[in-house]
Amino acid sequence: MHAKIPVGILGATGMVGQRFIQLLEHHPWFEVTWLGASERSEGKPYAEAAKWRMKTAMPKHIASMMVSSAEPKGAPKLVLAALDSKAAAHIEPKFVEAGHILVSNSAALRMDADVPLVIPEVNAGHLKLVESKKAAGKGFAVTNPNCSTIGLVMALSPLQQKFGLESIFVVTMQAISGAGYPGVASWDILGNVVPYISNEEEKMEAESRKLLGDLGDGEISMADFRISAQCNRVAVEDGHTESVAIKLRRKASAEEILAAWREFRPLDGLHLPSAPPQPVIYETRPDRPQPRFDVDAGKGMATVVGRLRPCSLLDWKFTVLSHNTIRGAAGAALLNAEIMKAQGYLG
Amino acid sequence: MHAKIPVGILGATGMVGQRFIQLLEHHPWFEVTWLGASERSEGKPYAEAAKWRMKTAMPKHIASMMVSSAEPKGAPKLVLAALDSKAAAHIEPKFVEAGHILVSNSAALRMDADVPLVIPEVNAGHLKLVESKKAAGKGFAVTNPNCSTIGLVMALSPLQQKFGLESIFVVTMQAISGAGYPGVASWDILGNVVPYISNEEEKMEAESRKLLGDLGDGEISMADFRISAQCNRVAVEDGHTESVAIKLRRKASAEEILAAWREFRPLDGLHLPSAPPQPVIYETRPDRPQPRFDVDAGKGMATVVGRLRPCSLLDWKFTVLSHNTIRGAAGAALLNAEIMKAQGYLG
Amino acid sequence: MHAKIPVGILGATGMVGQRFIQLLEHHPWFEVTWLGASERSEGKPYAEAAKWRMKTAMPKHIASMMVSSAEPKGAPKLVLAALDSKAAAHIEPKFVEAGHILVSNSAALRMDADVPLVIPEVNAGHLKLVESKKAAGKGFAVTNPNCSTIGLVMALSPLQQKFGLESIFVVTMQAISGAGYPGVASWDILGNVVPYISNEEEKMEAESRKLLGDLGDGEISMADFRISAQCNRVAVEDGHTESVAIKLRRKASAEEILAAWREFRPLDGLHLPSAPPQPVIYETRPDRPQPRFDVDAGKGMATVVGRLRPCSLLDWKFTVLSHNTIRGAAGAALLNAEIMKAQGYLG
Amino acid sequence: MHAKIPVGILGATGMVGQRFIQLLEHHPWFEVTWLGASERSEGKPYAEAAKWRMKTAMPKHIASMMVSSAEPKGAPKLVLAALDSKAAAHIEPKFVEAGHILVSNSAALRMDADVPLVIPEVNAGHLKLVESKKAAGKGFAVTNPNCSTIGLVMALSPLQQKFGLESIFVVTMQAISGAGYPGVASWDILGNVVPYISNEEEKMEAESRKLLGDLGDGEISMADFRISAQCNRVAVEDGHTESVAIKLRRKASAEEILAAWREFRPLDGLHLPSAPPQPVIYETRPDRPQPRFDVDAGKGMATVVGRLRPCSLLDWKFTVLSHNTIRGAAGAALLNAEIMKAQGYLG
Repeated sequence: MHAKIPVGILGATGMVGQRFIQLLEHHPWFEVTWLGASERSEGKPYAEAAKWRMKTAMPKHIASMMVSSAEPKGAPKLVLAALDSKAAAHIEPKFVEAGHILVSNSAALRMDADVPLVIPEVNAGHLKLVESKKAAGKGFAVTNPNCSTIGLVMALSPLQQKFGLESIFVVTMQAISGAGYPGVASWDILGNVVPYISNEEEKMEAESRKLLGDLGDGEISMADFRISAQCNRVAVEDGHTESVAIKLRRKASAEEILAAWREFRPLDGLHLPSAPPQPVIYETRPDRPQPRFDVDAGKGMATVVGRLRPCSLLDWKFTVLSHNTIRGAAGAALLNAEIMKAQGYLG
Repeated sequence: MHAKIPVGILGATGMVGQRFIQLLEHHPWFEVTWLGASERSEGKPYAEAAKWRMKTAMPKHIASMMVSSAEPKGAPKLVLAALDSKAAAHIEPKFVEAGHILVSNSAALRMDADVPLVIPEVNAGHLKLVESKKAAGKGFAVTNPNCSTIGLVMALSPLQQKFGLESIFVVTMQAISGAGYPGVASWDILGNVVPYISNEEEKMEAESRKLLGDLGDGEISMADFRISAQCNRVAVEDGHTESVAIKLRRKASAEEILAAWREFRPLDGLHLPSAPPQPVIYETRPDRPQPRFDVDAGKGMATVVGRLRPCSLLDWKFTVLSHNTIRGAAGAALLNAEIMKAQGYLG
Repeated sequence: MHAKIPVGILGATGMVGQRFIQLLEHHPWFEVTWLGASERSEGKPYAEAAKWRMKTAMPKHIASMMVSSAEPKGAPKLVLAALDSKAAAHIEPKFVEAGHILVSNSAALRMDADVPLVIPEVNAGHLKLVESKKAAGKGFAVTNPNCSTIGLVMALSPLQQKFGLESIFVVTMQAISGAGYPGVASWDILGNVVPYISNEEEKMEAESRKLLGDLGDGEISMADFRISAQCNRVAVEDGHTESVAIKLRRKASAEEILAAWREFRPLDGLHLPSAPPQPVIYETRPDRPQPRFDVDAGKGMATVVGRLRPCSLLDWKFTVLSHNTIRGAAGAALLNAEIMKAQGYLG
Repeated sequence: MHAKIPVGILGATGMVGQRFIQLLEHHPWFEVTWLGASERSEGKPYAEAAKWRMKTAMPKHIASMMVSSAEPKGAPKLVLAALDSKAAAHIEPKFVEAGHILVSNSAALRMDADVPLVIPEVNAGHLKLVESKKAAGKGFAVTNPNCSTIGLVMALSPLQQKFGLESIFVVTMQAISGAGYPGVASWDILGNVVPYISNEEEKMEAESRKLLGDLGDGEISMADFRISAQCNRVAVEDGHTESVAIKLRRKASAEEILAAWREFRPLDGLHLPSAPPQPVIYETRPDRPQPRFDVDAGKGMATVVGRLRPCSLLDWKFTVLSHNTIRGAAGAALLNAEIMKAQGYLG
């Protein structure tokens, strides 16, 4: 039996950092050996530095692990990053510079031309962007999209492959956990809807086009569909729900669309530990998907789609749900690390 | 001082019926003299028949008023109706047949060709549809739109007048009170989003086109824009929030659109007691409107709009909020009764 | 390998019935072979009769199982019952009369002198009440307490054993799922507290004294402590939280009380499949237990206690949490069936 | 017409400061002329310094008023204070020292022997504690109790007067607004109960005994009842609900208790603008009071009581509700300022 690959968690005390620790507890390939966080936490055992807010218990060996400062020194080669965007902007480049492989959930580097923005089921090929750096023994970063983008793009990817996408309209109803901790004040969201999330619409529109874009000769050309996003916060704990409408380049029947989703299993055979067996699940019940019942589909790694019906403006309307701190954050980065391992990017 | 006009409330014990009673408590023109409800309530004093769920106290003279059966006999000429759709379908025609003026919040008759579907600020002229019946001394019905339609159409009306509407995209996040009582089970909505409300999308699409249609030679021609609606239920008590995108026939700047909303005061000078001084209020704060803070604007009779910004797919995106049981139900019917009084339809 | 024991579920379509099905899906001893429900469901496959509201999927063989009427004919000898109280009052006796072993979650028979009211960790010995009926080959009923009683009594039982209880004060904050489906209307509970649950305080006070009472010569003598309960409903999905204060007959230190809870493992060695390894878990974090984080402790079968501190009126104050539809309903009945199997009451 | 008395608001940008501004908007006696807040806000117009979170609009003259630093210089003689406890501990004494009359909502000085802790309906006589300072032309402070104490003590005061109190048991279910802004993180409270509020139980127990204590010869002797409090946070916006049990020194019937509450109108004749006409309202409906429906009773200044019933441990049980940011904070301090004006303490 091979030893597990050591991984560091950067931003280990926050909500996404805690999810990383939870998801990695019994991981067959990776093992957490280093925890990095802000100065406030540095030098304390994790149990003291972090206010644990997961429903499962804090793993024991993590509880007593000392938290390091958010500096490359001492960190293992592979680092999963869950810093907030501001901190990420000046900390992440230091890790890349120091030769680390940074698999980041932050927005800081996502749209950089030489940084792959990856959903393994959708555009694993974009990882080639880092091949020259890897060959040169340099550090590099790989990112996953924003929590509201990922469910949408997983639902769109098989449709774009089969029919082409011309226009996309999306309105989100996003869970509070997407804002981190303490995040949204209860006074602002209890019994309320907040029709604004800073910079979220811009991220969804830009990231979707990069994710579904083509890697040509060394650079990504953005997908040429038009997309309009409106983002709202609602009083849900976990799970972003999205009302979507699309116009396809080639007309498709409901049956063809359902088949495209059903048959979309691009990772079959790779045996990635965190990959959901069915990445896009179609729920036939008329009032589904719902965060209450469907957010944990595929252990929180699947995207659940429902209510496919004709749109009187574009072609089709449907609802998308995905877990925003698993598939939309920690699980996304972890699956990126897994496909990178499977394809030799970590070696 | 003139005596007040007697009004009956049909469906007096439900949520909308209770709102009618609350809004009419100190009304300068109308006075509740008759309460009709289902057999279960018949013959009981209202205080016993209704489980009162308003935040203000039940008016004393209403508490002791005896509830009648939902039959025309004994009801005054003017009846405000708040029956659920099934009951309305067979009860409302009886009242019209018996010569009553029925101002109804129900969906049963809304799309009938000879029944005006009216928002006073938008299409008061459609009331002409009933002139011949009125002249003949017959009964007739006037309806208001569905709770999710009314805020949208109030925001759209000035834009259609000034610039013309080509396409409309709307996604709703609707409050639980829109479903009546007991309505949505708490197990289904607490911490959840339900992406389905039976028949709601169809209503929004059809009613919008009738409301913004033209009354030609004795009949309404539906407005010729295209509209696509997606309806969701969220854990909000009162106030439907809607994410809207529109394409205009004539391009307009943000300033022109804001001016159209600001100057939209078609009822000025009529002194209708329930008309909000500013029917469409634009909120400049970036994260507004929100149900928590804005639902009671104009005593719940105004529509609050915010976040006007360009749309990468159509022309403009914005957020609309309106109170679903005041402006979207009881207040809507009451304002219809008021404009009918002002324009001589009740005489 | 022995065949599993066939069990019927009476009241199979409701919330607790669904929990039974969920908990029995992979049960090592029992197998669901019969589903009984009201006339409305009779003759339909379960998938059609029940609106499934669990987070896990409906088991396939259950989905296609035909629902029977709520009559003994055709039911297996062992029946787990989840009827509402009204239905239970006239249906449950029929099953007992017909010779069935009825393990019921309903309140109907709980306080009958010849019916054991059992929590296996607390008073398994009370099962002896049915021995003569069993010996005579007759049917009999065994019940579990109300959802708000069970967590309290599990926390109290080791204290009564070691120190004796003189007085108990308890105020509950109960989850909506305790009211079944549709249960509490969302309008009544969203952002609200309802300080009343019909008959709940009476049940808590009476059941606690029977559960902690002694089985003397063929009958239960009620425990002689005094108990005062106040019951509230709050906007929580699953998990009843209770603020408790107690006066002991023999003074005990905090350490002695913590030890009593820690050492309370009366089922050790019995290997009951649904028994939690640690029935009473003490949480040391100062703001716990909380439904959000602790409700699933011991797979929803443990009681979580926290905040032990002196009381200026009685002796000690603490907070109790338990899962109201698992430990407080379906899991309670199932564990009763398990201990009955282990002790030969099913044979 | 006399000029209004100028008042300053210390801590003007927080939740309670905003409530002060809202309640003073049309006040007949007082006029806001000065706003003090932390350094971050100093020198900015209020509209820019404060994120307004009230449902009514920010008063216009307040919006443009410049915010001062939290220093006595420039503040009017009468200052209403809404600082958080930490800030209050070092800022409030400076205002007293500088000769101001400080009417404070903070906990900092409440239990000081020479500072009156006052609810006008309960212990206005305690204001005499400041007479010598007033006579000497010195500054002094008057405080109101904690938001969870005030509703309880208003309900208890008439019972103590008529029957005497021996023991009190109280469990609170407190609204999120009691924690200020941002206060409780939505992740911590949505669908949850938090059984802990720092230092709240200690405050309730101590403040109740001071409020209901006697002012003997220049000092307050604490009331001699025993009181045990347990405090919980629930997902309610405004309104603390409390489950109470009491033992009286002289036995009283339910009718006598109801009469004591009904006849408790100690401020009648004083015409204080913010005093509720009926300070303690008894709700007869079996499931009331509820925050949803009753929190605004008496414009948020009344205490609503319900469910009076015998207690099997003490004498009586009942439920208390009061508005925590009006009666429990800003309204409490304002009413204190009003009675001080009426009794000559401001002159």
